[in-house]
Amino acid sequence: MTDFHLDPRLAGDTVPVVDLALSALLMMRDGNYPWLILVPRRAGAVEILDLEPTDRARLWAEVEAVAAALAAETGADKLNVAALGNVVSQLHVHVVARFRGDAAWPAPVWGKVPATPLDEMKAAALRDRLSARLSGTRNDP
Amino acid sequence: MTDFHLDPRLAGDTVPVVDLALSALLMMRDGNYPWLILVPRRAGAVEILDLEPTDRARLWAEVEAVAAALAAETGADKLNVAALGNVVSQLHVHVVARFRGDAAWPAPVWGKVPATPLDEMKAAALRDRLSARLSGTRNDP
Repeated sequence: MTDFHLDPRLAGDTVPVVDLALSALLMMRDGNYPWLILVPRRAGAVEILDLEPTDRARLWAEVEAVAAALAAETGADKLNVAALGNVVSQLHVHVVARFRGDAAWPAPVWGKVPATPLDEMKAAALRDRLSARLSGTRNDP
Repeated sequence: MTDFHLDPRLAGDTVPVVDLALSALLMMRDGNYPWLILVPRRAGAVEILDLEPTDRARLWAEVEAVAAALAAETGADKLNVAALGNVVSQLHVHVVARFRGDAAWPAPVWGKVPATPLDEMKAAALRDRLSARLSGTRNDP
């Protein structure tokens, strides 16, 4: 874990939300959708299969907790969960709140429309509420 | 479980591979990519969160087993794993073997290029090999 460094592209495209036990939780800088990304802090992981089985189980549990929190806070019509990594290979899992009629609906969010700026006040408030909801799985010392 | 029926659109777009303990494993009728879909046999499930916790854990284990089998059989450069469901709401998880230079690379596969017909012989052989590899998690009586 000491060798883990967040990919610069992921870092540039996101703002931090909270550190979970395994994963850094990030929010995409895209005002089109409430769009979160989990990045397991494991150096060199590209595929989910690269994680140890206990870490895989932990990642799925964190994905479920993040999905539940995002659904509760946004009232999303649908959640999209995906591990792609064709462009940025560092293992990361997208959890996106989708709404009928959002900028890409019903297409997936990737590459459909350009990102729009975050509403900084709204985004900060959502990050705070998500962080509070996820505090049970937070990476506290 | 008695009320579970495979969504007609999923049924029409795929061919069956094998029944796993929880999920029906299907292969997309698209020659562009080796593309599998897991459908948990739980009536009414739309989100992963709709499943009972034990079923969620089983689904993730099946996704991991399918991903490992698909990687081993295809030598994929990257696996794409996704639960979207914006068009077909019945809960289903895509596991796609991606290759640098494939028809959509590096974009996600959804809606990028039209499907091409499966090479029926090759596809049947791959289904047989996947089914054999996954026999440990098969839904045998």
